[in-house]
Amino acid sequence: MVASLGTGRMIAPVPADPQVTVLHVGSVFSVERLAFPADPARGRGPLVRDVVRHPGAVAVVAVRDDGQFVLVRNRRVAVGRPLLEFCAGKLERGEDPAHAAARELEEETGYSAERITPLGTFYTSPGFADELMHVFLATGLRPVPQRLEEGEDLVVEVLSPDALRSAIASGEIVDGKTLGAYLLHTMHGGAS
Amino acid sequence: MVASLGTGRMIAPVPADPQVTVLHVGSVFSVERLAFPADPARGRGPLVRDVVRHPGAVAVVAVRDDGQFVLVRNRRVAVGRPLLEFCAGKLERGEDPAHAAARELEEETGYSAERITPLGTFYTSPGFADELMHVFLATGLRPVPQRLEEGEDLVVEVLSPDALRSAIASGEIVDGKTLGAYLLHTMHGGAS
Repeated sequence: MVASLGTGRMIAPVPADPQVTVLHVGSVFSVERLAFPADPARGRGPLVRDVVRHPGAVAVVAVRDDGQFVLVRNRRVAVGRPLLEFCAGKLERGEDPAHAAARELEEETGYSAERITPLGTFYTSPGFADELMHVFLATGLRPVPQRLEEGEDLVVEVLSPDALRSAIASGEIVDGKTLGAYLLHTMHGGAS
Repeated sequence: MVASLGTGRMIAPVPADPQVTVLHVGSVFSVERLAFPADPARGRGPLVRDVVRHPGAVAVVAVRDDGQFVLVRNRRVAVGRPLLEFCAGKLERGEDPAHAAARELEEETGYSAERITPLGTFYTSPGFADELMHVFLATGLRPVPQRLEEGEDLVVEVLSPDALRSAIASGEIVDGKTLGAYLLHTMHGGAS
């Protein structure tokens, strides 16, 4: 199924046992500096990489019984603008991702789900961060009170399958996890 | 096309003029602490957020004349494993994204492209980082010498459209930018 080009050489595993220096510890993520020794056999000098350590997160493709998708427009201070996204949030320490998905859905959108089904996982930005996004489909939605956390400011928006697809194609949706989650949903037989 | 639920209230804009403290400056990204004053009118106390500042990046959906996709298996030290991905790389300072796409494609895969076409953009992880991913379609591919950067260790892999789709559906591909870029490609009429 997968063919290698060129020499057919195998990729080397990620070097083990770098020297780790913690550069920053914050409430959401930390930053480590990884120093790998030189590898003369591969013609490589010493290598230093700063990486973001993140607890992981969930994204929830929430579909009502009438087929409409439930999204949120979320104020995102890191990018300086609100974004239209699937409901999402970071994992609490030791939290089961499916539990986090149900919790975030209730808190952010005011819906509980009868069914939370895993759709897959992906790394959001593996060039510099280890954040793993766990994607779930939520169905059997029932209204419950919305409970926003301190500092959260978001508005629920309900989109038809066509409207969601248009919002992606037109560039109105520019949130990577929403694109990845939507793709996984369509791959698993969801409306596309 | 988009309907708001509940009170129909509008989301507040991202607060302006936070106090900014630079916590970390590295070769790929920096970290800032943003402190927003309390907003009593919205019932909100003071708010502090750490955010990653990143120069932005490109991802390249490279399709050969025979319809096969060109990907790379890239050692990713941040996640401790190699990942199968579309060719990608961060922007150099002031670099035009289309130029970066052509440069990364040549360096990483050993193909030059006659045509580099924009497919869209997305934020990879807007909860904590401002990295914007610029996605391009590369066609009219011609072999040129591969030129890996210091510390890069990757292997080119060529996948048929069916194999690429299977690799996504099966969870072999777990790179978010590759999922988002593939979705944008299919939305623009690419093989899906």
